[in-house]
Amino acid sequence: MGSHIVVFQPDGVCLEADSGATILEVATGAGVAIDSACGGQGACGRCKVVVSLGRPGGRPGDQLSTEEIQQGVVLACQATVEDDLVVEVPSEAQRGDLRILAETAGGATSARLAQLEAEAAGGEAAIPLAQRIPLHLEPPRFGRQEGDAEHLVEALRDRCGEWFSEFAIDLAALRALPEAARECGWQVDAVLGDFDGVGRVVGLLPSAEPHTRGGAPSCGLAVDIGTTTIVVHLVDLATTGFVGACAYLNDQVSYGEDVISRIIHAQEHGDGLAQLREAVLGTINRCVASLVEGHHIGRDQIIAAACVGNTVMTHLALGIDPAAIRREPYVPAVRCLPVLRGGEVGLQINPAAPVYFAPCVSSYVGGDVTAGVLATAVADSPRLTLFIDLGTNGEIVVGQRDWLMCCSCSAGPAFEGSGLEYGMYATLGAMERISYDPASDRVGYQTIGDAAPRGICGSGLVDALAELLRAGVIDRSGQINPGFPSPRVRVRNGRPEFVLVWGEEVGREHDISLGEDDIQNLVRSKAAVYAGMATLLDTLGLPASRIEQVLLAGGFGNYIDAENAVTIGLLPDVPLDRIHFVGNTAVAGARLALLAREARRRAEALAARMTNLELSIIPGYMDRYVSSLFLPHTDLSLFPSVARRIELRA
Amino acid sequence: MGSHIVVFQPDGVCLEADSGATILEVATGAGVAIDSACGGQGACGRCKVVVSLGRPGGRPGDQLSTEEIQQGVVLACQATVEDDLVVEVPSEAQRGDLRILAETAGGATSARLAQLEAEAAGGEAAIPLAQRIPLHLEPPRFGRQEGDAEHLVEALRDRCGEWFSEFAIDLAALRALPEAARECGWQVDAVLGDFDGVGRVVGLLPSAEPHTRGGAPSCGLAVDIGTTTIVVHLVDLATTGFVGACAYLNDQVSYGEDVISRIIHAQEHGDGLAQLREAVLGTINRCVASLVEGHHIGRDQIIAAACVGNTVMTHLALGIDPAAIRREPYVPAVRCLPVLRGGEVGLQINPAAPVYFAPCVSSYVGGDVTAGVLATAVADSPRLTLFIDLGTNGEIVVGQRDWLMCCSCSAGPAFEGSGLEYGMYATLGAMERISYDPASDRVGYQTIGDAAPRGICGSGLVDALAELLRAGVIDRSGQINPGFPSPRVRVRNGRPEFVLVWGEEVGREHDISLGEDDIQNLVRSKAAVYAGMATLLDTLGLPASRIEQVLLAGGFGNYIDAENAVTIGLLPDVPLDRIHFVGNTAVAGARLALLAREARRRAEALAARMTNLELSIIPGYMDRYVSSLFLPHTDLSLFPSVARRIELRA
Repeated sequence: MGSHIVVFQPDGVCLEADSGATILEVATGAGVAIDSACGGQGACGRCKVVVSLGRPGGRPGDQLSTEEIQQGVVLACQATVEDDLVVEVPSEAQRGDLRILAETAGGATSARLAQLEAEAAGGEAAIPLAQRIPLHLEPPRFGRQEGDAEHLVEALRDRCGEWFSEFAIDLAALRALPEAARECGWQVDAVLGDFDGVGRVVGLLPSAEPHTRGGAPSCGLAVDIGTTTIVVHLVDLATTGFVGACAYLNDQVSYGEDVISRIIHAQEHGDGLAQLREAVLGTINRCVASLVEGHHIGRDQIIAAACVGNTVMTHLALGIDPAAIRREPYVPAVRCLPVLRGGEVGLQINPAAPVYFAPCVSSYVGGDVTAGVLATAVADSPRLTLFIDLGTNGEIVVGQRDWLMCCSCSAGPAFEGSGLEYGMYATLGAMERISYDPASDRVGYQTIGDAAPRGICGSGLVDALAELLRAGVIDRSGQINPGFPSPRVRVRNGRPEFVLVWGEEVGREHDISLGEDDIQNLVRSKAAVYAGMATLLDTLGLPASRIEQVLLAGGFGNYIDAENAVTIGLLPDVPLDRIHFVGNTAVAGARLALLAREARRRAEALAARMTNLELSIIPGYMDRYVSSLFLPHTDLSLFPSVARRIELRA
Repeated sequence: MGSHIVVFQPDGVCLEADSGATILEVATGAGVAIDSACGGQGACGRCKVVVSLGRPGGRPGDQLSTEEIQQGVVLACQATVEDDLVVEVPSEAQRGDLRILAETAGGATSARLAQLEAEAAGGEAAIPLAQRIPLHLEPPRFGRQEGDAEHLVEALRDRCGEWFSEFAIDLAALRALPEAARECGWQVDAVLGDFDGVGRVVGLLPSAEPHTRGGAPSCGLAVDIGTTTIVVHLVDLATTGFVGACAYLNDQVSYGEDVISRIIHAQEHGDGLAQLREAVLGTINRCVASLVEGHHIGRDQIIAAACVGNTVMTHLALGIDPAAIRREPYVPAVRCLPVLRGGEVGLQINPAAPVYFAPCVSSYVGGDVTAGVLATAVADSPRLTLFIDLGTNGEIVVGQRDWLMCCSCSAGPAFEGSGLEYGMYATLGAMERISYDPASDRVGYQTIGDAAPRGICGSGLVDALAELLRAGVIDRSGQINPGFPSPRVRVRNGRPEFVLVWGEEVGREHDISLGEDDIQNLVRSKAAVYAGMATLLDTLGLPASRIEQVLLAGGFGNYIDAENAVTIGLLPDVPLDRIHFVGNTAVAGARLALLAREARRRAEALAARMTNLELSIIPGYMDRYVSSLFLPHTDLSLFPSVARRIELRA
């Protein structure tokens, strides 16, 4: 097998590749991010690239039009290297930097942090996972034999003895101690990690002047390890302030769209587990690199990380085989992790940094849900709450202060914008609010960052579905009415679709549209969530009307329209003022865990408290799912307010 | 700079070496052990090798006779590589394998172990630093969400919950768990380390049948990190039985003979600390390699190590800068170490294995003394005890159950056989008992292993000194009487010496002799010890006669003659039945710490309890040292029994 030179543009990345490898494989290996949602099966059409020089091998792929083939467009996952190639990656295929624009649920997090602190016994709430503590050591004296290490522990005990039952010192810190202490007149800064109540000195630095310390802050990461999307927040541990955030599509997507296909990949390939671990770590570390560079901090300054993920993601990120999760009796290898280290986990941060993983409830209800329940204080409320976290899986928790019951349903990543032609994560240029006036045939929209529209994120998809249903563009089964009197309704490549944005109006080559396939995808997704919720409520013998608050969490965007969410049957038909969109509660919970021991303590208690309902063994779940495959539902009596609005129109 | 081929014989080791490097450096790098006591200064003459092919560079060295130079003899530390060379390493220059023949103080260790177990509260004594524990896990059940890890902890709690306050599982063990548990029908063996009371699963193995387990035992190391000699015992952790032992000269000897010169080396060379760490780890790991090979076990089967060393050795082995030890106010960086890991320490054993270091008392009284006091139960005895551990430093402890006081004096390694022309460590062929009858001019001796004599170990040196004094061969200042009527008294290379073994009688090329320089070396060594002891007793206001037992520890050999030790003034003149030779108590204490938590607990308490006396700041120590530079002492009234015997002869 020979090798060839492949150049990727516009990045200018140039490398030698074995012939026979797909362009997608070569790009992934070279760190060139090409979008792909189907795991390189040639199915999603996301990875269209243009070969401007050289002749690739492989088959063209069904997704391509004759015109595209003539222009040199290929699917990167199908085209192989058989020649020296120059590959142009168009902006649509660049997986790009899903930079989070605002601090999702930032204010709520701060308020919750303050609440946790206030409620904690003995003022313990504020102990972060790691912190930099300035210490003044007692200098050694003649005739006393205490070593430097003992003076360090003594100073720690004076300074924060009430917070820790015990202190320990890493070997690396012991090595740094004698010189650091003597060079700075016995003033040193200890990097102190909270290892389940033991205060462990994981690093030691010469004392910094307060202003210097301000310039070189000690930071922590809150990491939401989603099946489809990784979101990382960088937090200043001293001020608890938000520094920045970054998000990327989880590289694991190349190995399958949902957790089940990932488990299968791990099982069926000898190094599958290692590949999946590398993929997710690679994505997280790309976020870290971007944050480190963007905020001019050193990797060593990141002295802690709190991670939350569903149970399978937690296993895969740590290289623990999740196979048993999909084999009877469906159990995880581990639910609660000890505090680990950056180095052993493989995070490119300070290798001694403590790394926390939020505890999981069951095989399909993970640490992201624990974190979400923690962040939203569901377990502190006397009100009956329905909490829905809609990511690639939809996890649902029902309960209040005295009890909590949860389940998980395979929603698929449609509301994360994945698997849809113009779907996208809630980032710059994503259409997050959409309205349609059939009379004027005008589509109104608002984009994140007021940028030119690039695609549609979750909240926009909810709006679009509701508006098209209301306008009669689609019927209750989600099918597009071919006779609808608008040029926006058209057939492209044999697919009925509705054009939301004309490309020429915004200077884009392609129009932004919602196809019937996309709509079916969204309907299946919302049906899975609704059926899960209905099964949970039925098991508890509670009618939806008893729900006092509905909290919808997920990376939809900055905003979601409650009425539209009810209209499409994603949420139950309760008075709209009971419905609250709470944003990415997983990352919010991760931030709480990063910043407060009280949060870590509560997360553990929560995970132990939640009663898990395994939907796959509940009779009737499937029936409820099928009944939910209508907008809003087969049984309109469950959605009286929607029925009234639809009838009004009809 | 070019390179040349160098072949070492009789090992047959062949390698490429940079020109300009000394033969000693090349040999060290290639693992060819050439003796050297002066740190490569060209002073000790130990490293004589024969270059049989090729022309080396460098200077010949003052140690060589014309005849030797004609035969191609060079000092390996002075001769450099400027040509392809074949180097013959004669048996005298082979540092060789200081294999310990018998289990030093083995019986005593077992008895002490039993005693500790019996005295421990709640039967905790027998908890080794790590152990392999067979477990039966509860298989997962439908409708329960516990992960495998929880079943593991549950099984551990059932099996050994009374011994550990808490359990934790290493990430590597978590990774191994799902497969190991399912492959063996939920029978697994946990490798459980005792991390200061927390039971940590550091490894996980499929359950082995008892007979297989017998064939592949889980072992631990007891490591005595001496300034001059490293002694490693391999112990079966399940049976507590001795498996084997190995000893080598500490490679650090190349950087200086005593701890002070090592500290200076670390300070004066940029990478000095790293070199010293590598040297001592290299030596320990050579012992490990020899034991692993000799006893057919895998490195991963060594699941724990207990190390004892003086304070400087402890620092250097861990790469912690000991500089402050020789700067006012003379404090160590650390006295008590947490339980570390094989990997982070750099031991070539199971990288997750817990590694314990015995706690040090002060800058010059280290973990080897703590271990010795532990092993000899000094602190349990109502009797006033004088404990002397004579290695490269002489450490002295005086006390009994209620109090303990200690000090350290720079004895030098003469009684370890180092620094003497025919001195050697107590190993195969070492003359360990020596007698001399002036009437017949016959020297009687006994060698270790009844092998042909190769040199003289500590106990033989004590005998020789006493016998030569008694016979009048040497006077009380240690000078050889040139008029003594025996052909054994002669002058060689300008040095008066006494021939102990005629080479031709035992088939050796060279005679084995004791030179006047050697004798002076021994006298200085014993004087340092005696002066230390005298200072300690005077500080306490105790006459030597009050001492109820004298325990002499060290790697002297299997036997020491108490009367001879008193005769030369190494030990005070107490009734001989009060004097006991207790062997290498450092390694014995390390074995106790390896095998019993009670021992580790007591070692910590002991180190905290002992009152340290810093001799360097005590007025009068130097005077006492000078007065002790006679045999047995300037003041004969301190040695009435010796005075009687000497007068009897005179």
